[in-house]
Order: sequence, then structure tokens, then C-alpha cells
Amino acid sequence: MYATPIGYADTRFETAADAPRQGVETPYAANVQVYESFRGGLVGLEPDDRVVVVWWADDADRDVLAVRDGDRGVFTTRSPARPNPVCITPCELLAVDAADGTLAIRGVDMAHGSPVLDLKPALD
Amino acid sequence: MYATPIGYADTRFETAADAPRQGVETPYAANVQVYESFRGGLVGLEPDDRVVVVWWADDADRDVLAVRDGDRGVFTTRSPARPNPVCITPCELLAVDAADGTLAIRGVDMAHGSPVLDLKPALD
Repeated sequence: MYATPIGYADTRFETAADAPRQGVETPYAANVQVYESFRGGLVGLEPDDRVVVVWWADDADRDVLAVRDGDRGVFTTRSPARPNPVCITPCELLAVDAADGTLAIRGVDMAHGSPVLDLKPALD
Repeated sequence: MYATPIGYADTRFETAADAPRQGVETPYAANVQVYESFRGGLVGLEPDDRVVVVWWADDADRDVLAVRDGDRGVFTTRSPARPNPVCITPCELLAVDAADGTLAIRGVDMAHGSPVLDLKPALD
């Protein structure tokens, strides 16, 4: 299955190693920049909504199946190192500029430049 | 970004139209069948864990950006019709057979045969 980036994460974490392990554990605010051709999908997004950012951990090792000396399969972890490095980070939406395609969000764990595949309303 | 299926959903919903709109709203149990080469990732998964099933809605319309006569962008919905039909369904794990690659889960909204990309522990 071929996934097309709808935008990218604009964050202060230069590499995956700089990023926190879990967005929900962090207070970091940053932006998602949505490409022009996908901005029609932003209509109706409002500040204070909670959104799930679906993104792709570009530089993750895709050949890892187990961690901790084989004691834990990767499907019991949220590590980006996994067969498909699709990451899902629930974030607080702080501000939306649909015309510009800029979303200010809080709770960020993406490295700068990570491709964003999707935005969904969070389930509470 | 190219995503590789790690398995598929084995459910009683023959098509997407037969599947419920949200897994969390449904009591339906079914199975995820994990391909042999990815079963090493299942080590440590236990019944009663909550898992997020990341799957791909094969037959979704990928050209839709807005619904309800343009009033709502697709990024405000969980509809599979969206640029990248990556769906995320939190499920209750009922039973695991890691050797067979069979996971019995509850809270299912996948059409039968949908490719599964990932399994992650649910955040509570």
C-alpha cells in the first residue's frame, strides 16, 4: 500500500533521537504544515479539538521484531522501530489556519520533517 | 511511503458497507491473522490487553477531501474515505496464539481481508 504525505511535522526535534518517546507525556507545541492540495480536508477543524496525527517515522529501523533481548515483540511497544513505522500521536489542537495549512498542536513527538499521512478526531 | 501488510483482518463483514462505522461502538469479535514472518513481534501480547489495530481500507475512495456538501473536511471525520485510508481501531484482545499468528479481538470494524499494518498497545 502506497501512502502519500498530506504534509509534514515542523518541530524543534532535529532527529528522532531528540524527540520525546511519547507525545502524550510531553508539553511540546509545534506545527503540522498541510500541503495545499489537501487543505480542503481541514474545513471544520477547530481549536481545542483533540486530533490524532498519523505520521511516518522515516528513519526508523523496519527490520526490528523484538526488543529487550527478545522478551518483547514490537507489537507490545510504541517504538517507531517496527515493520511499518506508522505512528499515531494524540495531540491538542491549539490553532488552525486552513488557508495556510498550518495547525498548531501540543503533545508532539515527531522529528522535524516527518511526513504526516492523516489527521483524525481523537476518540475520548 | 510503502507499507507492507503484516497480516489481515478475518471478519464477518464481507465489504466495507457491511462493517460498522466505529469499532468502539460495536461488540463484534473477529480475528487478526498475522503472517509468519511477523509473528516474532507478538511476543508478550496478553489477553485483556487493549491494542490499536492499524489497518488499510483497501476499497476506500482516496480522492475525497470533504463530506456533507463540503461542510466538513475529511480530517474532521473517521471515515475511511480520505487521502490515506489508514484506519486505527482500538480493540480488546481476547486471546493470542503467537505460534499460529491468530489474535482474537473485540470491537471490530474492518471488512474481511483488510490488510493490517500494525498493532500497538492502546494508550489509556
